[in-house]
Parts: sequence; structure tokens; C-alpha cells
Amino acid sequence: MSQDTEHVKCLIIGSGPAGYTAAIYASRADLKPVMYTGMLAGGQLTQTTEVENFPGYPDGVLGPEMMEDFRKQAERLGTDIRFGYVSAVDFSSLPHKVTVDESKTILADTVIISTGASAKWLGLESEQKYSGFGVSACAVCDGFFFKGQDVAIVGAGDTAAEEATYLAKMCRKVYMIVRREEFRASKAMVHRVLNTPNVEVLYNTETIEIMGDGTAVNAVKVCNNQTQQETILDVTGFFVAIGHKPNTDIFRGTINMDETGYIITRPGSTETNIEGVFCCGDAQDHIYRQAVTAAGTGCMAAIDAERYLAAKEHVVTA
Amino acid sequence: MSQDTEHVKCLIIGSGPAGYTAAIYASRADLKPVMYTGMLAGGQLTQTTEVENFPGYPDGVLGPEMMEDFRKQAERLGTDIRFGYVSAVDFSSLPHKVTVDESKTILADTVIISTGASAKWLGLESEQKYSGFGVSACAVCDGFFFKGQDVAIVGAGDTAAEEATYLAKMCRKVYMIVRREEFRASKAMVHRVLNTPNVEVLYNTETIEIMGDGTAVNAVKVCNNQTQQETILDVTGFFVAIGHKPNTDIFRGTINMDETGYIITRPGSTETNIEGVFCCGDAQDHIYRQAVTAAGTGCMAAIDAERYLAAKEHVVTA
Repeated sequence: MSQDTEHVKCLIIGSGPAGYTAAIYASRADLKPVMYTGMLAGGQLTQTTEVENFPGYPDGVLGPEMMEDFRKQAERLGTDIRFGYVSAVDFSSLPHKVTVDESKTILADTVIISTGASAKWLGLESEQKYSGFGVSACAVCDGFFFKGQDVAIVGAGDTAAEEATYLAKMCRKVYMIVRREEFRASKAMVHRVLNTPNVEVLYNTETIEIMGDGTAVNAVKVCNNQTQQETILDVTGFFVAIGHKPNTDIFRGTINMDETGYIITRPGSTETNIEGVFCCGDAQDHIYRQAVTAAGTGCMAAIDAERYLAAKEHVVTA
Repeated sequence: MSQDTEHVKCLIIGSGPAGYTAAIYASRADLKPVMYTGMLAGGQLTQTTEVENFPGYPDGVLGPEMMEDFRKQAERLGTDIRFGYVSAVDFSSLPHKVTVDESKTILADTVIISTGASAKWLGLESEQKYSGFGVSACAVCDGFFFKGQDVAIVGAGDTAAEEATYLAKMCRKVYMIVRREEFRASKAMVHRVLNTPNVEVLYNTETIEIMGDGTAVNAVKVCNNQTQQETILDVTGFFVAIGHKPNTDIFRGTINMDETGYIITRPGSTETNIEGVFCCGDAQDHIYRQAVTAAGTGCMAAIDAERYLAAKEHVVTA
């Protein structure tokens, strides 16, 4: 092997809750895992503020602090954590070949994919400015912080509709901003939104700017794209629900995924269609997408990888 | 309704990692959950010592402390936590009827079952004495603490065989204590054990006593049940792998379960065959059985319950 080639038992790609939990379990199972963090070390949670719903933090924790805890724990148990990104994969034969930073080749007996997903954003400067300070891409995560308050949500699909009714239960008023003159959501979900008294749907409407005092959101400026009329909505929360994109482009064509790019795993396990390749976290979950569900599947992936290797080793030596 | 009858949106039965995580999510979704802890408040982890593999605790945590953190978090977010046990259930009509402490009736729109499982033990006094101090029922959880040391494991089924080979990777020597003259495990698993050089199988052997210095295990006395010859094994760890029993007796006949009593959920969700009844944690998982996987499914159960109620509400009002 050249010096730019390295053989590992277990390669973990990505460093969110799924990746770190896989690392903790793989380390303790003596798989000597090597993790490449990806460009956003720590994953989506490093871009959030308060996290109240991860069990083990009675008083809540800041997203970046929590991921720092995870990192320390994986490192203490022996995970070799490296900053770098995967630029190509070849899963056509064993061991799997993974190219890192376009230069180094890793030969891996098992690969755990935990590359996560990214929320889609509108692309407004003010949206970025207030991200985590009133702007959120997850109603289930952050809705509770806006109890009794007025909020807006942008989106027109099933998830947006579901999140709007979720917010409606705890918020006083929910403005739902729909760009076109109709929903993309299913009839049942549209029916649910339209029958929730404290949700007001604004059709043909686009978001111009999220407004605030510099530290928190206090309004959103929207515009009717038919009449060009601008309106100010007095809201303290702004939820973006225009979809997520799993970070799986690098695997396209090499592994089974659905049309959106979510990697398909055997239900109740983390097995993909490729021997020795396991997937956990948001890269394979478009239903729950929570830090703790991602962590749970990260644990499963490490256990699946360990059992795969144990079974394989003894078939070979038989 | 009589004063001994109470109607709740969401009833959570059991208080391990699954139950508390369900409680955290259900509280934040405004389901106003009521939890009955069961007789062992906090679940199996209250009977362990060091926990190293739950993400978020970089330096590890004691099991009882961790469950206290979970409890505080659920309580702070509004869960109504009550000490009590469920003595009967009637899932034949909606709302579901659950009897608590043989006296009180809870009518519940949704029920989250998180009653967990119990490890089976040999029943020796010394086994109980050293539980968490060298005696463990989970190789994946605790094997790492015995790295480079000699251990014994008792059991003859697939799980015992799997755990023996798991331990063999990190321990110097693994004695496998099998009561009969053969394994109950599958041929493949037996093959794996017999081909692992540092596993020594002791057939026709029973455990007489776990020996130690009062604070840690240093040996195990075993006896050949054919020859009656006693042997002292110098080990620092003693693993019991004679099976688990899900705590689901109270649900027998009312909900689909497998022959061991694990409740059957739709893979990739926490739905059971009964409308409005969800199951999470070890009561439905005989494969992974980790605190973090239980917590992940607890989150899923709360989200499933919330979505079920949201969908139902709007069907009714249509």
C-alpha cells in the first residue's frame, strides 16, 4: 500500500449525533473507528442555539456545546477523529474504497454513513442572521420556545402543513406563507390546516425580510406576488419548512436511495443494499429527524457493523 | 366520571430511557403526558453503575444519576410523573382504559408502552451483591471495562455466543459456562465460539458462587454437574447471558407480541396493532437493547402519538 492508502476496520463518514454515537459504540467494540467529520464538523446542531429535547441535559444545552460533548466522548473512548471530507467512494468490491480530500485512499472493511441532511433555506440574509434566534427549520425542535406567541411558517408541502398544525397547538397564531395559489401538500393535510382556526394561510406570498432588534425576531415582511402588496406580520418566530436535502450526493449511483436522495436501509436495522455499508441518522430518515433518533440509529450502525465483521471473520476462517 | 377516573391525552407506562424521552417530546408537543413509573422508577439503568456509552456524558455517568437527569428534564418540561404501576389494561375501545394500582382508572387517547425488559439472573446471592461491580447482564454495555482482563460468561443461546465472541475481542480470556453438554445456539454461532481461540467452553458446568473482595469480583466458583468437581476461575468480570424477559405480561392477550413477549411494532415506527397504542424501548427490542436506542424510539413514540392525534382530530371535525 502506498503511504496515501490506509486500511481501517470501520470508517465513519460524518460527525453529527449519529456519527458520534456510532463512534462511541464502535470504539468500545474495539473496531478502532476512523471518523471523517465532513466540512461542518458536529453537523446541523452546531448551527442551532438551545436544545431542550436531548435526554440527559435537564436544563437544556446549546447545540454546539452538546456536539462538543459528543466529540470529547468519542475521542476519549479512542475514536480517531479527522477533519476532512469524502470526495469519492467505490463500493463495488471489498474492502470498500473511499477517497478523502481528493487525495488519500481509505480501504474500509465497514463504512458507516452518517452524513446527515441539510435544511433548505430561502436564502435571505436576514434569515441567516436570525437563525437560532427566532428562525428555525424544525417545528418539533423549537416550537415549544414560542408557546403562546405568534409565528410564521413558510412552505406548502406535507411537512410544512404538519408543522403548521403542530405549532398551532402551542402558539397563539400561525401565519402560513405559501408561494403559489395552492398547496403542494396532500388533500388530507390541507384539510387539516384549513380546519385549524388559528392558522391563517397567505397564498401567493413570498418572504421579503425577517425583521428584528438585532438579537431576536419581531416581525416578517411578506409580499403578495400577484398584487405586490407588502405586509408586516408581527411574529417572534419564523419557521422554514421548504424541505431537507440529505447529504448523499457523493453516494449517488453506488447505493440504493429514494428519489430525494435518502439512503434506503432495511427497516429496523441500518443495513443498506451494499455489504458492509451501514447508514444512520438523517441521511436515511425523513420522518423523525431528531438528534436522539439519529443517535439511536448511530448506535445500531456500530452494533450492526460489529456483528457483520464478527460473522464474516468466522465464515472466512471456517 | 368518578373521581377515580381521569381522562388524559397521552399516558406513558414505564420510566426508563424510552419512557422519559417520550415524556420530553410529548410534553413539548403539548400532549400533557402523564407517566406512571412502574415499580422500578428509572428502569434497568438504576441498577447499573458506570455508563460510558450514552452520548452527552463525555466522562461517563452513573446509571442512577443519568436517570435522575432524564426525570428532571421530563418534569421541567411539564410531564406529570407519578409513582404507580399498571395493573390492568383494556384496549378494546377508545379511549383506552388503564387501571393503575388496582384502583384508579385512566382513560387515555394514546398510550405509550415503555415498560422495558428485565435481564434473567441465576439467582445467586453473590451475583446480586456484585451486580455493577463485576457482574453484568450486557457485554456490549460493559465489556469495555474488562479490556485485557479474564472474564466468564454464562449462557448457551445465540445471544450468549454472540456476547462471548464480542468479549473475546477485548478480553484476554473468556470462559463460557454452559449448563448442559451442548449449546442451544445455532450451528453458525457455535462454530464462531469454538473457532475463537481465547474462548474456553466449560460444558456441564454450573456457577456456584461469584467471589470477590467485597467491592469487586476476583473469581468464580463453578461445578461440573456430571463429576461434581469444583473449579475456581480467576476472572474479574462475570457476564450473565441467559436471556431477557420483556415486562409485558400485563398486555398479554390485548396486543400483538412475539412468543417471548416482545411487543410487535411496525418496523421503522412505534405503531402496534392497536390504534393509539405505541411501544418503544426494550419492550419491543430484542436486538439492540441500548439506552440510546431506547431513547430514540421513545422520541419516535411521542411523535407518532402526536401525529396520530393531529390526524384523528381533523378527521372527526371534518
